[in-house]
Amino acid sequence: MNDSEQEIIEATYRTLCEYGYANLTMRRIADESELSKATIHYHYDSKDRLFKTFLERLYERYVDRLDEVSGETARDRLEALLTMELADREADPCINFQTAMLEVRAQAPYNEDIQEMLSAFDEALISSLREMIADGIDAGEFDNSVDPDLAADLLTTTIKGAHTRHIAVQHPLDHSYRAASTYVDTYLLGENPSKVTV
Amino acid sequence: MNDSEQEIIEATYRTLCEYGYANLTMRRIADESELSKATIHYHYDSKDRLFKTFLERLYERYVDRLDEVSGETARDRLEALLTMELADREADPCINFQTAMLEVRAQAPYNEDIQEMLSAFDEALISSLREMIADGIDAGEFDNSVDPDLAADLLTTTIKGAHTRHIAVQHPLDHSYRAASTYVDTYLLGENPSKVTV
Repeated sequence: MNDSEQEIIEATYRTLCEYGYANLTMRRIADESELSKATIHYHYDSKDRLFKTFLERLYERYVDRLDEVSGETARDRLEALLTMELADREADPCINFQTAMLEVRAQAPYNEDIQEMLSAFDEALISSLREMIADGIDAGEFDNSVDPDLAADLLTTTIKGAHTRHIAVQHPLDHSYRAASTYVDTYLLGENPSKVTV
Repeated sequence: MNDSEQEIIEATYRTLCEYGYANLTMRRIADESELSKATIHYHYDSKDRLFKTFLERLYERYVDRLDEVSGETARDRLEALLTMELADREADPCINFQTAMLEVRAQAPYNEDIQEMLSAFDEALISSLREMIADGIDAGEFDNSVDPDLAADLLTTTIKGAHTRHIAVQHPLDHSYRAASTYVDTYLLGENPSKVTV
């Protein structure tokens, strides 16, 4: 990716923040960048092509961020991942970008390229979660009767639901964070409260 | 609500199924109904006003369906609710309507009336779940250290996430159903697998 392409991708991000996905046009992206509309067309022959590349770059960055999630134990890593996906988002300077990404999700059924890319995001998250949970079971940290696939799927669904509710109905992300964290502490760790009372 | 209004609301549903939310117009609603565009304008002076009424009717029907969820025990009722929200949707004849409703969610940040109505849907679901969970605790069926607010919030978030993933990335609803059901069986019932191994 050369400098112009990098500039176009960054201008696309700023345009999404400002206008949302429905109003994303090549004209507006050009206005947000240092480049002419012709230069943008030279690099990307259509808005769809440009947007696909934008999602690919976003995906690469997302996978890097998932890889950077660290912690001594599997539970620490899982907590760090929930913090990244839920708690940290509350402080995101560009809430409008998250709104735009919900618009993009709603467009996925109409656009195969978008659907494919969004599936890749989901798959990256599930596979990180699955690995952390399996590591925790191997280390004797998580209950060995937990099914890593099922637990990773539930947490992924919960995280996506938290994002949707946060944007659509302003449901506080820290509620979702607490709920997901309690799930990890009780179900995965096997610290079910009933053990205390039985 | 008189016959014409009822007819307009039903035509709005069919129009959403066929064209999605982005392409919903008074013209198309008129074409789907037995009524003229002028008659529709007589009842609703704008598309936004009509759509708000549509969401209100949908909400009333949703609350009725929640009230109809029945079962002998709290757990049975919770299972029936998960079946209604997750398992049954797979067989929905109008998948496009669910797609349109995801578009509507993405519009909520831009439209206060829509956001208010969608919050009411969320609140109705949470309050049904909270009541079922609290009933189950009172009856000694669910673990008494479960926090009904937190558990109802997690299940609501999971259900909304399941809907979003189903539409956006074609994630099978029965996976989400299984994951949510396992959560109920282990966390709420206190049948944590660790109890067997401890």
